[in-house]
Amino acid sequence: MPYSYLSHLRCSKTGEIFDADQPQQLSRVGAPLLASYDLEALKKAWHPAALLGRPASLWRYHELLPVRDPAQVVTLGEGLTPLLPLPTLGKQIGIPDLWMKDESIIPTGSFKARGAAVGVSRARELGVTHFAMPTNGNAGAAWALYGARAGLRSTIVMPQAAPAITRLETSLAGARLYLVDGLISDAGRQVAQAVAEQSLFDASTLKEPYRIEGKKTMGLEIAEQLGWTLPDVILYPTGGGVGLIGIYKALRELQELGWVKGDLPRLVAVQASGCAPIVQAWQQGASESSFWPDSQTLAFGINVPKALGDFLVLDALYRTQGCAIAVDDRAIQAEIRQLASQEGSFVCPEGAAAFAAARQLREAGWIQGGERVVVLNTGAGIKCPDAITVLPQRLRSDGRIPA
Amino acid sequence: MPYSYLSHLRCSKTGEIFDADQPQQLSRVGAPLLASYDLEALKKAWHPAALLGRPASLWRYHELLPVRDPAQVVTLGEGLTPLLPLPTLGKQIGIPDLWMKDESIIPTGSFKARGAAVGVSRARELGVTHFAMPTNGNAGAAWALYGARAGLRSTIVMPQAAPAITRLETSLAGARLYLVDGLISDAGRQVAQAVAEQSLFDASTLKEPYRIEGKKTMGLEIAEQLGWTLPDVILYPTGGGVGLIGIYKALRELQELGWVKGDLPRLVAVQASGCAPIVQAWQQGASESSFWPDSQTLAFGINVPKALGDFLVLDALYRTQGCAIAVDDRAIQAEIRQLASQEGSFVCPEGAAAFAAARQLREAGWIQGGERVVVLNTGAGIKCPDAITVLPQRLRSDGRIPA
Repeated sequence: MPYSYLSHLRCSKTGEIFDADQPQQLSRVGAPLLASYDLEALKKAWHPAALLGRPASLWRYHELLPVRDPAQVVTLGEGLTPLLPLPTLGKQIGIPDLWMKDESIIPTGSFKARGAAVGVSRARELGVTHFAMPTNGNAGAAWALYGARAGLRSTIVMPQAAPAITRLETSLAGARLYLVDGLISDAGRQVAQAVAEQSLFDASTLKEPYRIEGKKTMGLEIAEQLGWTLPDVILYPTGGGVGLIGIYKALRELQELGWVKGDLPRLVAVQASGCAPIVQAWQQGASESSFWPDSQTLAFGINVPKALGDFLVLDALYRTQGCAIAVDDRAIQAEIRQLASQEGSFVCPEGAAAFAAARQLREAGWIQGGERVVVLNTGAGIKCPDAITVLPQRLRSDGRIPA
Repeated sequence: MPYSYLSHLRCSKTGEIFDADQPQQLSRVGAPLLASYDLEALKKAWHPAALLGRPASLWRYHELLPVRDPAQVVTLGEGLTPLLPLPTLGKQIGIPDLWMKDESIIPTGSFKARGAAVGVSRARELGVTHFAMPTNGNAGAAWALYGARAGLRSTIVMPQAAPAITRLETSLAGARLYLVDGLISDAGRQVAQAVAEQSLFDASTLKEPYRIEGKKTMGLEIAEQLGWTLPDVILYPTGGGVGLIGIYKALRELQELGWVKGDLPRLVAVQASGCAPIVQAWQQGASESSFWPDSQTLAFGINVPKALGDFLVLDALYRTQGCAIAVDDRAIQAEIRQLASQEGSFVCPEGAAAFAAARQLREAGWIQGGERVVVLNTGAGIKCPDAITVLPQRLRSDGRIPA
């Protein structure tokens, strides 16, 4: 049995086929390429029981991942993150069957590690030696660190307002790091220029085909952790949207393999009120989004004014009878406090946004009380300590704790 | 088969037996109590094959943990952290078979989650409703968060110099948090007073018997992940020393069960030059340490001037032909950079100290080039962003990335 059943790449707009064993960027029409697998062959050769005893990482699904040679796998132990029941919060918001897929328990403290592990591994396998990317922080940190482990060089550009800790990680990894006085869209323009002038490999979101393959493992894991059943709703904080597209792709692949049955979950793209291009497009029934000017939110990871894969996100929402919803920064901060004090989890602002959305969609009746709902917490709250403030009491060394 | 084979508690100094099904603190002579299990019965009933298919968390070893009722388990998905080969760094320092047990991939970003998960679960099972503890930050954050999930109240006292992120976690969890203008030893005195006056349960290091049971799972996991073989050396950054005592206890229990054979690994207690009471005691061949005055190190988690369990740490070092070694803050900072740039892992200062010690012990010949060496990285570097500084380049939004 081959390690990977990767067969070819396919343009997400025209369906044109591309060779998966050459380094590829966008298709001829400027659209993302998506990886295809030989699912017919895999269906005969692979069954859920084969996963028993495999490592507790996303590489347990290697048949559905693009790396062909196990020796090329660059891993820090990412994946198989906890899927946790949240009974206390669930009861409070009227969704007793509420779950959190907790992507804070992963190298670099962010789900970006999944895309980096698979993207970097496959890039190295295909001979890439130096990649470049714009980032809102966490993706750049993850790619720089995995790149360091892989022995690759990296050039990373992030807004100077990105979380300070991600700049530290990126720099310590030895990346060539630039802080730009602007947004991720400015960084993207600069990276595109450097890629063209300096022959770098462009690892921007969806400009290479394999980051999404790492992200899709969130969908594989949710299905496995629920015993190969699917929840009714999955909420995902949406910036570039790769995780949502990836989860949708994973669940479709599992359907084709016959590992899951029935309707797909209704997928929900959660954005911030200060940057909600996908929500606006969904409300208009549009197939693409428009650039969102002067975007702003404390959930920095979803401050993406225009996503390259917006049409794929919207397509997944429409096809699953999902929706898109925006929440404001105050609701995000309140939800951070709720999660910590009720369930013991310090979630990132982006994850908190998705919980705020679950609460609002339940209030609006879009989510029913008996439904099984999975919320993606995409990273660790400890990476964004400035999102929220506390005022602990002080005590002198000869002081006494009051009763 | 019972969920837990816990049989009784035993005074670590006198051997006196205590009831494990009552809340207990120190023994009559003021020494820690250690949990005993019915290993004779367990040896007949339990085999490594039973672990296949169990959850990827420390609860996979529930027979060797103290919680009797699975419904009392308070979990955020902690444990089964990665054991990663470090080929590049290993080659550089002359230990090709170098491994990192990476305790950053765990709820709260610190190995303290293990002690908190098991300690809080068992405390709740025994009817505790409000606990108190001094902390250098990470333990308090973990206990406060797990306490919140368990529905318990907590009172936490930490030095105001403790990492700011741990104060945020503790406070968000809803704990009663005090920042003391002093060291953990001052905080300990204040907690002891509050415990006496306010009838709180004292969850200080080794003053309750179950935190160590959580910590020992690091030892169980290392053995399982190496296929029930043992490494030659394990290095552990040592403050209170519970992890080292726990690993030693775990490996002894595995020996009694017959799951591992041969010599135990040589255990190494790593401290900071600015706070090295165990090292001093070991150099003198003493069985206990003396209070280390004016202690200071950027590895805040091991700034413990006098550990209650020092005699147990020293006993484990002597019995395994281990050693104790101190490293300075500059070596710690250098090792943080090495790990990130060579292996893609941003380790905490305490973990970096243990790597610096491995390097120095190899140079000194105490570690041989052919030995298998496991280093504990006890937490995520992202929790201590102030330990190291970087100076990234800046770019205007209309700027250009230099070639």
